[in-house]
Amino acid sequence: MASPQAALPGVPTIRWDEPPEGPVIVLLDQTRLPAEESELVCTDAPALVQAIRTLAVRGAPVLGIAGAYGVALAAARGFDVDEAADALAGARPTAVNLAYGARRAQEAHRAAVARGADGPEAAAAALAAARALHREDAEASARMAVHGLALLDELMPGGGHRVLTHCNTGALVSGGEGTAFAVALAAHREGRLRRLWVDETRPLLQGARLTAYEAARNDMPYTLLTDNAAGSLFASGEVDAVLIGADRIAADGSVANKVGSYPLAVLARYHHVPFIVVAPVTTVDMGTPDGSAIEVEQRAGHEVTEVTVPFVPVAGAEAGGGTAVAPLGTQAYNPAFDVTPPELVTAIVTEEGVVSPVTAGGLAELCARSARVSIG
Amino acid sequence: MASPQAALPGVPTIRWDEPPEGPVIVLLDQTRLPAEESELVCTDAPALVQAIRTLAVRGAPVLGIAGAYGVALAAARGFDVDEAADALAGARPTAVNLAYGARRAQEAHRAAVARGADGPEAAAAALAAARALHREDAEASARMAVHGLALLDELMPGGGHRVLTHCNTGALVSGGEGTAFAVALAAHREGRLRRLWVDETRPLLQGARLTAYEAARNDMPYTLLTDNAAGSLFASGEVDAVLIGADRIAADGSVANKVGSYPLAVLARYHHVPFIVVAPVTTVDMGTPDGSAIEVEQRAGHEVTEVTVPFVPVAGAEAGGGTAVAPLGTQAYNPAFDVTPPELVTAIVTEEGVVSPVTAGGLAELCARSARVSIG
Repeated sequence: MASPQAALPGVPTIRWDEPPEGPVIVLLDQTRLPAEESELVCTDAPALVQAIRTLAVRGAPVLGIAGAYGVALAAARGFDVDEAADALAGARPTAVNLAYGARRAQEAHRAAVARGADGPEAAAAALAAARALHREDAEASARMAVHGLALLDELMPGGGHRVLTHCNTGALVSGGEGTAFAVALAAHREGRLRRLWVDETRPLLQGARLTAYEAARNDMPYTLLTDNAAGSLFASGEVDAVLIGADRIAADGSVANKVGSYPLAVLARYHHVPFIVVAPVTTVDMGTPDGSAIEVEQRAGHEVTEVTVPFVPVAGAEAGGGTAVAPLGTQAYNPAFDVTPPELVTAIVTEEGVVSPVTAGGLAELCARSARVSIG
Repeated sequence: MASPQAALPGVPTIRWDEPPEGPVIVLLDQTRLPAEESELVCTDAPALVQAIRTLAVRGAPVLGIAGAYGVALAAARGFDVDEAADALAGARPTAVNLAYGARRAQEAHRAAVARGADGPEAAAAALAAARALHREDAEASARMAVHGLALLDELMPGGGHRVLTHCNTGALVSGGEGTAFAVALAAHREGRLRRLWVDETRPLLQGARLTAYEAARNDMPYTLLTDNAAGSLFASGEVDAVLIGADRIAADGSVANKVGSYPLAVLARYHHVPFIVVAPVTTVDMGTPDGSAIEVEQRAGHEVTEVTVPFVPVAGAEAGGGTAVAPLGTQAYNPAFDVTPPELVTAIVTEEGVVSPVTAGGLAELCARSARVSIG
């Protein structure tokens, strides 16, 4: 049904290409949005690792797809597949999907070699695994949207949903239409989205740059706000639900997601507003027992102390190439993610269904069901 | 004791000057900090209104001082004093101090005229009122710092305070060392400040630009963070108290302050951390019964949809002269303030003492006490 690369018009988020010079991975460079849609071509795994670290491609589900294609690329170009898989799996620590995708393509390659496949055949097996993940993610997106919209309608039977979201969770992070954003988009298509409140999502402004871009392209009624203005919306009763994605969900239901998610969960609880996490089952990591076991990536302070508008060349670039907004030498605390405990999460929506209330047992059951239906 | 203009080395926040060309108000242009310390000279009230609207001077207490000097300037230069007072009092709607300062100088002028004073004499009376307010504010600052530090020490007898603050509340907003910032500075001088966590305070980054600047100049141990990273600090137990200022306190104890204060109050309550408001008694407006009666200034959307780094000239300036970070046509919700209800405020610290718990009765008593000791 849902086909990869079709969710946004124009440049696809990620694609595999095979020009005469050899296979490549082509990314829509998200650091240059919304000013321009430019492609970034990765000819080997290290280039892809760099693209992941600089956030040219970001967002949990698509990182899994990128990891898998990256391993396939190493295999197709005759590089060490295990080394590439390790480098990709460790490029960013928090999103479990990245390691999952890299390992899945690596396993497919290893299994093919074990079966006696030659190099090209084993590379083809890795690529097939990546393509399968890409397709599955698109399908998962569509199913999450259905489950998520049903949940919204159940929680708020009147329709006219006013949904607050944080960071970017649409077609730019997915083989399909995304996670949380896909639910809001489904509501919009059914005429039941009254307003999408878009947190700008400091420090890298993924909400302002990317979610607003996707919302505008889909003609959705959206309004941008600074992250700290969300409190005013809650206080005046203008938020019916919070919808966010996830980078890792621990076995107890703790949710790691973009920094700023946890304060929204606390605000939502205080105002009796549902706080809904939308993520594919691959985001659940049964090997991580609870929130305290989730490694939270700390990023460079210059993301906070400088304002970088990457599509505008800045003369006299210093630490981060941006323009200083704080005094020289200012130290910054810059965690990329935060962790929301399960008791603050109303529901976790996956392609396999909804877990609510969020309990370790409920999540374990969901993962077992997913393993039974898995085609991978 | 505390003398006006002495709190920060270098350019004073606001001063009255009388060069041969006639009296002027000289401001430290806060829109250009921390990159450069430049003076902005206002030769009449409309220029000062413009400086207030563009936030070249901002912060509740100093707005009162500016309002009073502005009226004195109009009187000294022979303009219509009542017209100037009205324009100044209405330049920004939320901070009650601005109107208070303008009206106080206007009253002094009116009373002098009623006594039969000539123009220069009446102008001198208005200027004397402005100077008195300036001096009183510096003294109030010093007394708030004493009361606030005593409260911190009482709440956390161990010392080693880790204080989170929002927006800018130091010498840049005051005739003295400020409100909330002055308390943190007093703790620092006594060796009892372990860490000042500085919210960057979007959209205009007063925390990153101004509070970090003041903290650095005072050699305080400070760390900058995006507003939405505060949740992570609370969750990991790294905040002992929140200290903020106020732009208006209603009779029931509701506190209007920079947008983002209310979410901090909710986080503080959820984590059992004291949430302390520091403001002079003039910030309490007994004429505003409760939070719903406070007018919250809505500012232009381009403050959110564009990133403006005012000290870097930007070619091709559009709506706000900044660089777009969101798609063209993006609508933004941009309230400058939010309102925290009294039940979330642990204490209000004023120069006359501490109100805790925050009740209408406690505030009324404080204001009555203040009226008895007032020298104005």
